[in-house]
Amino acid sequence: MSKFLSDKFKSLSPYVPGEQPKGMQYIKLNTNESPFEPSQGVLEAVAKEANKLQLYSDPDLTELIKTLAEVYGVSTKNVIATNGSDEVLNFAFMAYTDRENGAAFANITYGFYSVFAKLHGCPYTEIPLKEDFSIDPEDYCGINKTIFIANPNAPTGLTITLEKIREILRTNPHNVVVIDEAYVDFGGESAVSLINEFDNLLVTGTFSKSRSLAGARLGFGFASEKIIEDLNTIRFSTNPYNVNRMTLAAGVASLKEDDYNKANCQKIIATRARVKKELENLGFFVLDSKANFLFAKKDGVRGKELYLGLKEKGVLVRHFDKEIIGDFLRITIGTDLQMDKFLECLKELL
Amino acid sequence: MSKFLSDKFKSLSPYVPGEQPKGMQYIKLNTNESPFEPSQGVLEAVAKEANKLQLYSDPDLTELIKTLAEVYGVSTKNVIATNGSDEVLNFAFMAYTDRENGAAFANITYGFYSVFAKLHGCPYTEIPLKEDFSIDPEDYCGINKTIFIANPNAPTGLTITLEKIREILRTNPHNVVVIDEAYVDFGGESAVSLINEFDNLLVTGTFSKSRSLAGARLGFGFASEKIIEDLNTIRFSTNPYNVNRMTLAAGVASLKEDDYNKANCQKIIATRARVKKELENLGFFVLDSKANFLFAKKDGVRGKELYLGLKEKGVLVRHFDKEIIGDFLRITIGTDLQMDKFLECLKELL
Repeated sequence: MSKFLSDKFKSLSPYVPGEQPKGMQYIKLNTNESPFEPSQGVLEAVAKEANKLQLYSDPDLTELIKTLAEVYGVSTKNVIATNGSDEVLNFAFMAYTDRENGAAFANITYGFYSVFAKLHGCPYTEIPLKEDFSIDPEDYCGINKTIFIANPNAPTGLTITLEKIREILRTNPHNVVVIDEAYVDFGGESAVSLINEFDNLLVTGTFSKSRSLAGARLGFGFASEKIIEDLNTIRFSTNPYNVNRMTLAAGVASLKEDDYNKANCQKIIATRARVKKELENLGFFVLDSKANFLFAKKDGVRGKELYLGLKEKGVLVRHFDKEIIGDFLRITIGTDLQMDKFLECLKELL
Repeated sequence: MSKFLSDKFKSLSPYVPGEQPKGMQYIKLNTNESPFEPSQGVLEAVAKEANKLQLYSDPDLTELIKTLAEVYGVSTKNVIATNGSDEVLNFAFMAYTDRENGAAFANITYGFYSVFAKLHGCPYTEIPLKEDFSIDPEDYCGINKTIFIANPNAPTGLTITLEKIREILRTNPHNVVVIDEAYVDFGGESAVSLINEFDNLLVTGTFSKSRSLAGARLGFGFASEKIIEDLNTIRFSTNPYNVNRMTLAAGVASLKEDDYNKANCQKIIATRARVKKELENLGFFVLDSKANFLFAKKDGVRGKELYLGLKEKGVLVRHFDKEIIGDFLRITIGTDLQMDKFLECLKELL
């Protein structure tokens, strides 16, 4: 830290992303990436865009916004796109949380929410999950705070129903409620249909998981026209060319071949069901995940030891050094072949 | 604007980027892009990266940082890379300006500085240029503020010397001085060599202008190890995967073929000299630009009218609705062919 750094950032502890190993080849089940390459159209669109890179990207993101609106059945005025969904989440923290408007989110959820809150000096409340690791929607009703809910939640994979989300929206009319749907395509139910009903709803999504574009960095948000206006004010005050040409082209191409992505999601869902059963047969407690990962633990086995043992055998999974979930592993669902290898290594370790 | 937006953003007026026309084909001399395609290696690197897009990009940006360090002759610990140089500038505003530490920059300079200052609620002083539109370095000595200087300055193209920058750094030891070198490769003198001498210097740069990668969004910063640490703390608290895979690959490939970029800069410099002379022959007052644009006006001719007349003829240049410079046009230097067309249209209009 330099002596010049503003006091407000002096105690900031940044988000720690999952390991991205550079040397040894691992079976990478630690950052919820898709095991499938992006669709053929994406490869072609990217290659085609490369010889126009001397020109700025479209700051209005016109074609991508139009295609997102078509695919999700909303108006273009209800859509924003960003450099990964972390960016739209960051904009939402900037726009809707401050010293007067505190944030609220689960104590076990996407780790970046608390980092954003600290970054922007916003007070926040962490609402404990229930004992079964689910979110109790009642805890979020009428609380008069800016709410962030990952649905499915990470790293549990558990969901809450649209009916409950509706209740949260209805009882917090003076606050924005952000539903983070990074994992929705693996079995969740999207709240996008509610944006015309509730002016306080922001639904965020990403191309990183179900669309095999984690490395392209593309996120999006759906909300009332006025919320989108707010977020665009922040976007144009931060980085008007926030999404580069290649990523824009990749996003459009991916949406045009969304059947390919949907078929991949079905594969993941089937593999998830199989691996869940196999883990249970091995004596694991496995949450009922609707995401592209499983969250599991086995009585009498230390999560950290299992994580290190798997790593030594060339399989990377995610372990969180946090008391309540310290014995869990978060295991991304890869291909069947990758999961067989994972299960094999696991059996050797047990 | 929604009723939920935080009070602090209610009067925010975002940055307005130059027009990016979607319909009619223009000769585009309005956003300081390079008229030359990126080098062949960039096209190949981007195409090759596309089938790895399902995997996150490297959050440590290792290969790019290493290559930047090599090319600029600094240690990897002195380098950061960002989603365009707007992002590193934004991080610098976040890190080093606040209510106690005001910012200072020229009244005529890159329009984003004041937007960033407002975004972060930081007081700022706009220091008037001299009558000849140059920056008076004396105005920045010992002022005890966080200083932002574009060198060459935009939209004037005028430079200050390293000797003067050294004096500004020496007399503001308690504040960070940011030298924004977006345009340095067209005839300016870089301050990168001073980062080991001054712990309060941050030099920023971009691949958008001299390296033909505006549409890839890639910026960077050089500074003391501690300043880079600060900026990385902010980066990891904002968007750890801030630069996508394709842009990382494009950046590395571009640096490896930097001779191509340097040759293009020489072409721009030669064309700039020719166009300057031709404009002067037409009675224009033209500043001595060291950037890839010229800033020019002609007595008795309204800048806005000239801009509109050129636009009608299919040539886009940049006009700023700001009193002191309202009669100037900022004309990006394109290819010789493009500039001939521009001059031809201009003659028709006069």
